[in-house]
Parts: sequence; C-alpha cells; structure tokens
Amino acid sequence: MNLDKLKEATRAQMPDKRWRHTLGVVETAIKLAERYDGDPAQAELAALLHDYSKAWPIDRKEAVIREHGLSAELLDNDKELWHAHVGAWAVQTEHGIEDEEVLDAIRYHTSGREGMTKLDKIVCLADYIEPGRNYPGVERIRQLAEHSMEEALIAAFGSTIAVLVERGKRIFPLTVLARNDLIMQMKQNNNGG
Amino acid sequence: MNLDKLKEATRAQMPDKRWRHTLGVVETAIKLAERYDGDPAQAELAALLHDYSKAWPIDRKEAVIREHGLSAELLDNDKELWHAHVGAWAVQTEHGIEDEEVLDAIRYHTSGREGMTKLDKIVCLADYIEPGRNYPGVERIRQLAEHSMEEALIAAFGSTIAVLVERGKRIFPLTVLARNDLIMQMKQNNNGG
Repeated sequence: MNLDKLKEATRAQMPDKRWRHTLGVVETAIKLAERYDGDPAQAELAALLHDYSKAWPIDRKEAVIREHGLSAELLDNDKELWHAHVGAWAVQTEHGIEDEEVLDAIRYHTSGREGMTKLDKIVCLADYIEPGRNYPGVERIRQLAEHSMEEALIAAFGSTIAVLVERGKRIFPLTVLARNDLIMQMKQNNNGG
Repeated sequence: MNLDKLKEATRAQMPDKRWRHTLGVVETAIKLAERYDGDPAQAELAALLHDYSKAWPIDRKEAVIREHGLSAELLDNDKELWHAHVGAWAVQTEHGIEDEEVLDAIRYHTSGREGMTKLDKIVCLADYIEPGRNYPGVERIRQLAEHSMEEALIAAFGSTIAVLVERGKRIFPLTVLARNDLIMQMKQNNNGG
C-alpha cells in the first residue's frame, strides 16, 4: 500500500471542497493521535479514507449495500450514514485495506458507536473540529478536545442531536448509544480517580 | 376488578402530589381517547396505574427487577425508567391486570418505544400535557395534541432529548427509536395523503 497513490485515488473520488475537508481531518487526526497516545500513521490512513465514498451518487452507494452483503438495516437508516459503511467496503475492496481498526473508524465516523476505540474517537472528533469546520459551538468542542476526547465527543454528539431535534429530523440511534457510553465512562473514571 | 378499589390502592402507593398528577393524566387520557377514537375505559385504567410504583424506594424497584425476571438490561438503564416496568409487573401481580395493551402502555409511558400503540400514545402524551404540567414548551405540545398525537409526541420527546443533551445526561435509546418511528410514520402519511 502506497500512501501517495491512496491519496491520489481518494482525491479522485470527491470534489475539491471535500478534499480540502479531508486534508483538514488528516491534519487534526494526526495531532489528536499524538496528543492522546494513538498511532499517528493509523490515524492518518483512517482520516484520509473516511469520506472515500461520500460524494458517490446515492444509487451507487445503495447498490453496494444491496449487492455486497452490507447490513440491510442500513437501508432503513438515514442515507447520510451510508457513505461511512460503503467507504469502508470500498477501501478494503479497491485498495486492500485490511486493518480492522481503520475500517471500523471509517465505518463509524459519522454515527459513532458504543465502545468506541481510540482510533474511532480520533477520526470522529477530527471530522467535527478540523480547521475548515465552522458551526455554532465548534470552538467549545475544539477547546474540550485540548484535554479530553471523550468530553469533546459528548459535546459534539450533543450538538448534532440538538440540531436534529430542532429540525424535526431522525437521530441516529448509534450516536445516542455512543454518547451514553462516553458519559458512563466519564462517570466511572471520575469515581475511580 | 373494581375501579374504586384500584384507585384507593393506587393512591396508597404515592404522596399527594403524585396522586394529583395521576388524576390529571387520567382526565387527559380519557379526553385523548375520545378525541382520537381510542378506548376511554382502557385509557382511564392505564393512566390511573401508570405511576403505580414511581414513589417506591429504589431498592424495592431493583429487587423486583432482579427477583421477578424483568429484563436485566433495565438495571443498566437510567433508574428513571425502572418504575414503568416495575409498575406493570406490580399491577399485574397485585391486582390481576392482564390486558397486555394496558400493561405495555404502563411499561413504555416514560420512554416510548418503536411501534407505539394508540393506547401507548394516549398515556405517554397525557403524562406530558396533563393540566398540572408546567415546563418550557408544554403549551406548544398541548396545541399540537389538539390535532395530532404523533406531532405532539415528536415535540414532547424532542423536548426531553434536548433537556438531557443540555444537562449532559444520557438519553433513553427507546425514546429516540420512538421519535424516529413517529417521524417516519408522519412522512409516509404525508406521502400517501
């Protein structure tokens, strides 16, 4: 696996704006990995590939889910989630990525999940706070990320959930499970410390 | 089953303030049943019993869950949910209530659930809007309840979720599933109509 070739291939999947976002996520993920004792090379790879299939036509994503044995449940979920699972499938199939931690970090970067790994947290959080992001509350999440990925993610998921409530839209159940789990972890750590 | 005796027994489980709330839920549930073509007698019964074990000591609720085969998963959930399931068990065991729709309406009145029955909706919504309730947004939910239980519940669950996000507390996953399901139902009805 050649990183330069992967970069080229990834860039070819998306418009310039999404590529700039991807570079922002890569930069931020590497920093988070260094700050929180993660693996910067793994973080770089997962961040580079996290939106691999985001810009694909929706029909193409649906076809992958139907034809390649991805969870059929996915089709009932918000389409916004599809690219994460389809992206993991695509980089495994097209580029031979076999690191399960990297594939999971891609798969769950949008929703989060219960029991997030360090790499899951790094990619998901980097996606929320990369330098190009600009939404109400992002500065507070960036500040929290200075000292705790968990606190930052609780705030980030909370902001996503609040926006969906305000707009009368569905909430990803996995995001709620991820947030609940992080809150319990924080509690246990505080009790133990 | 004698309704007057059930009222007495229910009143004996709780302080006056909770009993006044219960009477408010009964009154509102009957109105909703009449407005939305439900069964007023069933609504009255479920509303009367919905908080049967709410004021029980937490140890007693925990003991019921552990000793009587209620879902062990419940123990991992917020304690706020326990009384609904324990209450359904209690009225079945102590008062021979066997109407599964009534028992489910009691069981899910706090969280909601996917695929809520009409009776589930009546009791849950009555609990949100009975005349004694006074929280930010309750008037809007009362107005929505004039023409759609689904819209009112989407707003009610949304307000609960928003408060929990703001306070950094866990969200009941069932509430999110219930709200998502209602949103999908509304969409399908609008597309079909």
